[in-house]
Amino acid sequence: MKEAMWSAAIGDDVFGEDPTVIALEEKLAKRFGMEAGLFCPSGTMTNQIAIKLHAGPHKEVICHKESHIYLYEGGGIMANSMSSVRLLEGEYGKISLADIQSAVQPDDVYAPETALVSLENTMNKGGGSIYTLADIEPISDWCRNNAIKLHLDGARIFNALVASGEAAEDWGPRFDTLSVCLSKGLGCPVGSVLLGDRQTIWRARKIRKAMGGGMRQAGLLAAAGIYALDHHIERLAEDHRRAEILAGYLGNLSGVRTVLPVRTNIVIAQLEPKVKPEMMIGKLKAIGILGVTFGEDSIRLVTHLDFGDEDLNRLREKLAGGL
Amino acid sequence: MKEAMWSAAIGDDVFGEDPTVIALEEKLAKRFGMEAGLFCPSGTMTNQIAIKLHAGPHKEVICHKESHIYLYEGGGIMANSMSSVRLLEGEYGKISLADIQSAVQPDDVYAPETALVSLENTMNKGGGSIYTLADIEPISDWCRNNAIKLHLDGARIFNALVASGEAAEDWGPRFDTLSVCLSKGLGCPVGSVLLGDRQTIWRARKIRKAMGGGMRQAGLLAAAGIYALDHHIERLAEDHRRAEILAGYLGNLSGVRTVLPVRTNIVIAQLEPKVKPEMMIGKLKAIGILGVTFGEDSIRLVTHLDFGDEDLNRLREKLAGGL
Amino acid sequence: MKEAMWSAAIGDDVFGEDPTVIALEEKLAKRFGMEAGLFCPSGTMTNQIAIKLHAGPHKEVICHKESHIYLYEGGGIMANSMSSVRLLEGEYGKISLADIQSAVQPDDVYAPETALVSLENTMNKGGGSIYTLADIEPISDWCRNNAIKLHLDGARIFNALVASGEAAEDWGPRFDTLSVCLSKGLGCPVGSVLLGDRQTIWRARKIRKAMGGGMRQAGLLAAAGIYALDHHIERLAEDHRRAEILAGYLGNLSGVRTVLPVRTNIVIAQLEPKVKPEMMIGKLKAIGILGVTFGEDSIRLVTHLDFGDEDLNRLREKLAGGL
Amino acid sequence: MKEAMWSAAIGDDVFGEDPTVIALEEKLAKRFGMEAGLFCPSGTMTNQIAIKLHAGPHKEVICHKESHIYLYEGGGIMANSMSSVRLLEGEYGKISLADIQSAVQPDDVYAPETALVSLENTMNKGGGSIYTLADIEPISDWCRNNAIKLHLDGARIFNALVASGEAAEDWGPRFDTLSVCLSKGLGCPVGSVLLGDRQTIWRARKIRKAMGGGMRQAGLLAAAGIYALDHHIERLAEDHRRAEILAGYLGNLSGVRTVLPVRTNIVIAQLEPKVKPEMMIGKLKAIGILGVTFGEDSIRLVTHLDFGDEDLNRLREKLAGGL
Repeated sequence: MKEAMWSAAIGDDVFGEDPTVIALEEKLAKRFGMEAGLFCPSGTMTNQIAIKLHAGPHKEVICHKESHIYLYEGGGIMANSMSSVRLLEGEYGKISLADIQSAVQPDDVYAPETALVSLENTMNKGGGSIYTLADIEPISDWCRNNAIKLHLDGARIFNALVASGEAAEDWGPRFDTLSVCLSKGLGCPVGSVLLGDRQTIWRARKIRKAMGGGMRQAGLLAAAGIYALDHHIERLAEDHRRAEILAGYLGNLSGVRTVLPVRTNIVIAQLEPKVKPEMMIGKLKAIGILGVTFGEDSIRLVTHLDFGDEDLNRLREKLAGGL
Repeated sequence: MKEAMWSAAIGDDVFGEDPTVIALEEKLAKRFGMEAGLFCPSGTMTNQIAIKLHAGPHKEVICHKESHIYLYEGGGIMANSMSSVRLLEGEYGKISLADIQSAVQPDDVYAPETALVSLENTMNKGGGSIYTLADIEPISDWCRNNAIKLHLDGARIFNALVASGEAAEDWGPRFDTLSVCLSKGLGCPVGSVLLGDRQTIWRARKIRKAMGGGMRQAGLLAAAGIYALDHHIERLAEDHRRAEILAGYLGNLSGVRTVLPVRTNIVIAQLEPKVKPEMMIGKLKAIGILGVTFGEDSIRLVTHLDFGDEDLNRLREKLAGGL
Repeated sequence: MKEAMWSAAIGDDVFGEDPTVIALEEKLAKRFGMEAGLFCPSGTMTNQIAIKLHAGPHKEVICHKESHIYLYEGGGIMANSMSSVRLLEGEYGKISLADIQSAVQPDDVYAPETALVSLENTMNKGGGSIYTLADIEPISDWCRNNAIKLHLDGARIFNALVASGEAAEDWGPRFDTLSVCLSKGLGCPVGSVLLGDRQTIWRARKIRKAMGGGMRQAGLLAAAGIYALDHHIERLAEDHRRAEILAGYLGNLSGVRTVLPVRTNIVIAQLEPKVKPEMMIGKLKAIGILGVTFGEDSIRLVTHLDFGDEDLNRLREKLAGGL
Repeated sequence: MKEAMWSAAIGDDVFGEDPTVIALEEKLAKRFGMEAGLFCPSGTMTNQIAIKLHAGPHKEVICHKESHIYLYEGGGIMANSMSSVRLLEGEYGKISLADIQSAVQPDDVYAPETALVSLENTMNKGGGSIYTLADIEPISDWCRNNAIKLHLDGARIFNALVASGEAAEDWGPRFDTLSVCLSKGLGCPVGSVLLGDRQTIWRARKIRKAMGGGMRQAGLLAAAGIYALDHHIERLAEDHRRAEILAGYLGNLSGVRTVLPVRTNIVIAQLEPKVKPEMMIGKLKAIGILGVTFGEDSIRLVTHLDFGDEDLNRLREKLAGGL
């Protein structure tokens, strides 16, 4: 990947003249069956731009109450776009068409206008749970029939596709916009791409500028993205396999009450009431494993590019004697 | 009240020169033990100004998920102030200190800053349920210790005070701002007053101007408010008594599953699954009673100044034979 | 007017059920050849709603640098709608098509999108200068051809029409929205009406609710508006005549450098360098005339309903001996 | 620089754990005599965060009418922070204390509150004109005495310092926040750093997250910044020398009316009325020089790291015969 970055042709992306950025945007758009793409510094920015595109003042976004756009983007739904938000519940962080339908606002003076549904795949807070096309299609059809936009926060969309065996090109056309992160499982240092039709992405490009997301010689970073698309997708299956094994190890640890079903590369362990997540994270760190606390009673571990079978074996040995 | 309105001294309130408006603002502030007041065209505006005063972009408001500021003000929390919102549950629309504490955001980059707690008294969606000083004091103390502002949406605060027997002057000092509606139970045509300290209300006055709430010869409306404060408070007990009787009548109707406990002047009847709220509202309208649907399975009736014992008797007779 | 107010049929305008408000809205819409109207508590609110309707984040409003919407509405263009603003110069506060054309933004990433042109008639800071249809038509045509909205801040539109002899019904169709103030020359205590097509006004109604401009028994105020439309329009010519006479008196005062040409009911006197506007206002107040300072070297006087020929004569006598 | 980037220690800057980013932020803060820094993807973002920190709804920013924050950041002053803007004139894009003082808003209900003055150094639209400490000090003193914040858009601050011979550490303490671009004259691919006190930068870090400017493995880019600070500052004097020579060549070209005084590395040539800027840019491009049009009658050329004496000589030869 480093070699790809160094040898990248570079221009000025603020002027729209960086050939490597353009190549990445086109490659990813094509892969998802969409018209155009926009390279941004983070998944938070691609999501927030999407919300600005589709919602706004006196409009409302429907999403799961544990979705990243609501919980982890600094209140950006409101602070960036002035949109109202309607929060749904749903097992493993997933929401259904029926839930969405019951949350749509009436056309009266008291209510903001329902303008956007945002889904997340895989769902981080749901333990890496996945939506399949069968989940998405009725939502997508209904949104179109009701003039409500549909966005996918595809922070881990390739994990979902690898797990389900579904094709990216069947997914893109189901959404008005779709954001794809390059910096998580795909191993790039920086970046996320927003996909949509040509006119929407042109509007997104203007919003990106005003939000400060236009980067000058971004080709360096885009080259990493192209490399990752060519070399780091199929291998996500390895991460999933290791996550499942890791879940087994964790499930046997004392202090762990239960481990959520592993669908992709995220392992969430719920702890016994007496065990503080911070303490468990500290113990794991002491043997070289970096996790994060996850709500009041859980921890989250994620498998990735730099965590191989040897690491897994070493971990097994260390955990064998308990923490 | 009409006479009071006609004989009111009038000036230009945008220039701060309407003596009747000033008199109303001072009278109400004094009654609640606060420094200053601001007359506005609606309770929505006094609430929204309070949110703009205390919260804003990258900050968060904590309130009940059924509170008026979130449900019935057009998405204004976000559209006016860009504030994020954290929604709590709680029986009869009331929230507790423990709920608030668990909703406070950590000081990290992912989360907006918790800036404001907003309570509603009486709580409309809770069936006119009331907070007492015993409910409020621990919340007020804790907010002050944690530099979080506390606002009261006092749309029906006088109903609460009449029901609890508590004094207005003990309430004001518990809050940073408090909005009092004149147009509901108090019988004024238009208006709400925001109370706070002098500096806060001066900032509120500027915000009111930008939101378009500065009215020129508002003294006419303010005179009605002064009259209502002098003549329409104690009589709210009558509304509460009649609401309780009305609840008894409704409870006996076929099609009504249950009636929520009546605390003040609001009566909420939950209907049998097969009975549509719109239909029930229609039948009541046919015999001269105006109610509104309330969520998917309920209706709401409110007793007020223009609904006396005779109306109640007539209603009893009409309902005697069923609807 | 008081009688009209007292005898008005009243409902709840938040529910859209106040017959007098509806009558006022329809009457004014019809007069201007437009489909629908919305009664609001102030001209600031009708203007700010119009800006929210037509512009918004990443969009730009073009107006004169001395227009009311920019100078006197508390920064509301930005604080309410997040719109950018492009300020034009132009004699007597008026802007031309050529100025507008040169201010339109290119379709690139650096610039917000030009979305709205806002004119003011009569122009307060321009000394009550007026736009005529001949001024407006090329602007209106060009805006429509370029998908840019056109709003009229008609704070004193009836003064303009009385002065030019043009018909209201020729004006409405030239604009996307038009706000008409009832509380200035027309003599109503409170209120302004926003006019537009039916769908736009429905959206405006929702925005009004979120901004807190929905008033319950507003019929009282609307009745005054209906009365004013029937009785206070033609008499504006009297105000204009008196303003011209008043300008003559002022022009002869020592300390006054020059008086701007009087077009309607506004008289602006520019003072000698050594004369402070505050001082001159004070002296006039001492003889019973209320004016306001106007920028750093001027004062503004306005003739109105309650200023008759007797007042004018008394003033002449008092000014005869100098101030 | 590439070697520095490759060998950089990398962490996750969203978690605040990237050692190279931390090193860059501290190095630059120390150099400017400030407490803390924040690495962002662009100068637009550092500027916009500063505006969000210091201004906001119902507040106003004072800046030159040709400043980058107003003209070239997509309407972001309003779209990001809801701030109002007051635009000043002034030769070569510079504003004086007297201009600022006359633009400060009174404390009344009509006006937003003046909250921030923003300067730009060097001033792009002013032809790279510079502020010196003598210019800045009275403004800085006055702002502090009046509780108005002062921000410096230091997009080309090192050009200004090299030209004036002043020290960075004398500049930082004069401002509440200061943004320094790494991607222009300093030759880095991406990035800008916002400087301020520790508490302000912590608030900025939260805002950056919500705007989507938190980048994961940003150390790679930060390493380039550190390298540039060590190796690319003094050499800016070379750019300035070459810009002056270049200006001489341009001044002799037919079609060029005049060349603005060259202060740093920016050369602005005003063209004859009959010469279109686009045409002149095209001709220059044909001989290998990339410039941009600059307003309706000018072009802008910038000297930089990759434009050496050889390039200058080649250019001289090519221009010798005219374009």
